[in-house]
Amino acid sequence: MLRNSSRKLTSRLFSSSALRMTAAPLDASKVKISRVGTPSKPRPNDELVFGSTFADHMLTVEWTKEKGWDVPEIKPYGNLSLDPSCAVFHYGFELFEGLKAYKTPDNQVTMFRPDMNMKRLNKSAARICLPTVEPEELIKLMGKLIEQDKHLVPEGRGYSLYVRPTMIGTTAALGVSAPDKALLYVITSPVGPYYKTGFKAVRLEATDYATRAWPGGVGDKKLGANYAPCALPHQQAAKRGYQQNLWLFGPEKNITEVGTMNVFFVFKDAATGKQELVTAPLDGTILEGVTRDSILALAHEKLNSNDWIISERYYTITEVAERAAKGELIEAFGSGTAAVVSPIKEIGWKGTDIHVPLQPGKQTGPLTEQVAQWIADIQYGKEKHGNWSRTVA
Amino acid sequence: MLRNSSRKLTSRLFSSSALRMTAAPLDASKVKISRVGTPSKPRPNDELVFGSTFADHMLTVEWTKEKGWDVPEIKPYGNLSLDPSCAVFHYGFELFEGLKAYKTPDNQVTMFRPDMNMKRLNKSAARICLPTVEPEELIKLMGKLIEQDKHLVPEGRGYSLYVRPTMIGTTAALGVSAPDKALLYVITSPVGPYYKTGFKAVRLEATDYATRAWPGGVGDKKLGANYAPCALPHQQAAKRGYQQNLWLFGPEKNITEVGTMNVFFVFKDAATGKQELVTAPLDGTILEGVTRDSILALAHEKLNSNDWIISERYYTITEVAERAAKGELIEAFGSGTAAVVSPIKEIGWKGTDIHVPLQPGKQTGPLTEQVAQWIADIQYGKEKHGNWSRTVA
Repeated sequence: MLRNSSRKLTSRLFSSSALRMTAAPLDASKVKISRVGTPSKPRPNDELVFGSTFADHMLTVEWTKEKGWDVPEIKPYGNLSLDPSCAVFHYGFELFEGLKAYKTPDNQVTMFRPDMNMKRLNKSAARICLPTVEPEELIKLMGKLIEQDKHLVPEGRGYSLYVRPTMIGTTAALGVSAPDKALLYVITSPVGPYYKTGFKAVRLEATDYATRAWPGGVGDKKLGANYAPCALPHQQAAKRGYQQNLWLFGPEKNITEVGTMNVFFVFKDAATGKQELVTAPLDGTILEGVTRDSILALAHEKLNSNDWIISERYYTITEVAERAAKGELIEAFGSGTAAVVSPIKEIGWKGTDIHVPLQPGKQTGPLTEQVAQWIADIQYGKEKHGNWSRTVA
Repeated sequence: MLRNSSRKLTSRLFSSSALRMTAAPLDASKVKISRVGTPSKPRPNDELVFGSTFADHMLTVEWTKEKGWDVPEIKPYGNLSLDPSCAVFHYGFELFEGLKAYKTPDNQVTMFRPDMNMKRLNKSAARICLPTVEPEELIKLMGKLIEQDKHLVPEGRGYSLYVRPTMIGTTAALGVSAPDKALLYVITSPVGPYYKTGFKAVRLEATDYATRAWPGGVGDKKLGANYAPCALPHQQAAKRGYQQNLWLFGPEKNITEVGTMNVFFVFKDAATGKQELVTAPLDGTILEGVTRDSILALAHEKLNSNDWIISERYYTITEVAERAAKGELIEAFGSGTAAVVSPIKEIGWKGTDIHVPLQPGKQTGPLTEQVAQWIADIQYGKEKHGNWSRTVA
């Protein structure tokens, strides 16, 4: 049922995005660059806080329904000036992406699978009637933006430049309809490792009083609409001593996501000894995480299929609780661009805590640690994996 | 089940909003007013377009978690200057309200049930961790704002000043969490009747491939998050010749809302001759419309209970189709602040159109027409109804 309706929607989306392709396409070769007078000095690595200080330059491109994409501009980072009636302030016409750029030992800057983010950005845009972009042009523009601030891309494993493409509807009128004006912009922030002193496993509270996403909704898209409603369940969980909340869905209480990340569990069948890496299937309620996709691909490549089953399937908090009781729950971790993986050590559910094993003396399970290593090796240029790592500056 | 989980959420919300009451409250007496040099001349009534031209002044009030509400300012309408990393652009931290102000024959300005909008504004705010307001203070501030532009409030039945309170999260950082800074602002727009030449009944397409709201979601709140996802189903319906879409929910295909309005149906039991006015119950998936509430209250007061049943109950598109086939479907209309009521004449469903009767030579059913009259009489001061109509300027 779900898959059918989601397929139907997709075909509608394609026709809608195709229609929007007649005006001027996004064209990186037209970019105008005006640089800051005095470039900033890089901050020491240990002073970097996620997403709170920004590099010197930003990219902006205006779009109108009539003319399409205007000339891209790279200019000093600064405030946006917008009419208070703009669609973005009232009706949630906004989407974003999150990627990271890495400094390699030979002073190049690479990005990790940016084509995946561009694909998702276009799906998000089409779903809320914002314009789509030419993926390779926006990748080139991000490269040119990063080039201006190349000295601010931090060096060292765990450090990177977080890149935030954003698109907002800027039509200045209060009627609710598809915006006829939009602004695409990209800002960047030098960031350090999510866990400064190695992994720190988190405690989750399972949330059944609020629902993150639903069939026929927009939970698989990276829209602003999906985030503000998460703040209260997060705050409520934090008050009770949990760092994040675990999202459940439906009467069966399927496990879907953790906070704003995808989530994976590892079970071990007591009878056969076989392990299973499980995550929820992409049924329209799950964000199509690039890290999620990368973990699944690497697991298929690297884990021995005699010992491992890799599943995208529905599974419930009840299954997790039951298998924990039987000693069959082995590991659990969130996955996303910011932290790559985030180990889980406890899950509060119905007044008790389900314990998730960690390695002795460590804040992570063995597969979680391995997965983090696999991905970092590709991101920081130690391993090559097809064209996952792309030189952009 | 639904009612239980919604009650549970409400109690959590109250505790969360109570916590935010320690810093400075919103205080209308502190307002600073700076007026435009040359006030605008009013446009002729027939040139007014909904929400696309604005009055001369706007109200802004800044909030921080640390200090609470700052001094309210009434100042010339103008652009907002915001950091591109602000929470409102990325994570949908935004809510709004819509009200109308009416010029009475004795040159006063009244608002219709503004206390209801303030109550809903606070529920919306608490759900996404934005600050709540003191309802009477914001009503006073709206009055002071309208006073500055009193000459721009259009006269005549059907004409009014549309008032748009808006609140946005302005924390300038990319971490997803409850904003510690916010901006409350109010803009106003002189508007004419939704249907310039009397009623115009609309054709709806029933939408089952997308879902507007879900139990445990935020569909009952007036958040930006609920609106952008509606644009595509609207656009798709329009392409097939329907003015709006009718939202269905769940495998039973319950009727929930129309476009961005609540919706009412009228059935007549062929056996008993009794008529039923039906709308969906407030189960957490339905916007708590002020017009919806007013229509229900007036129907209970004015319709003879020997002839009428007034129901807030679940009903499906299948019931509508079946009762239309039996000649038991009598009327249908949307309800909201902009149009008050919006008569419906056809509903596209499974390749055919369900016909809704209209009065001969008219674009409306008899109850729809009556309801519009009841409400307009109160709004324009012809009838008094408790304190529904409040003088504000």
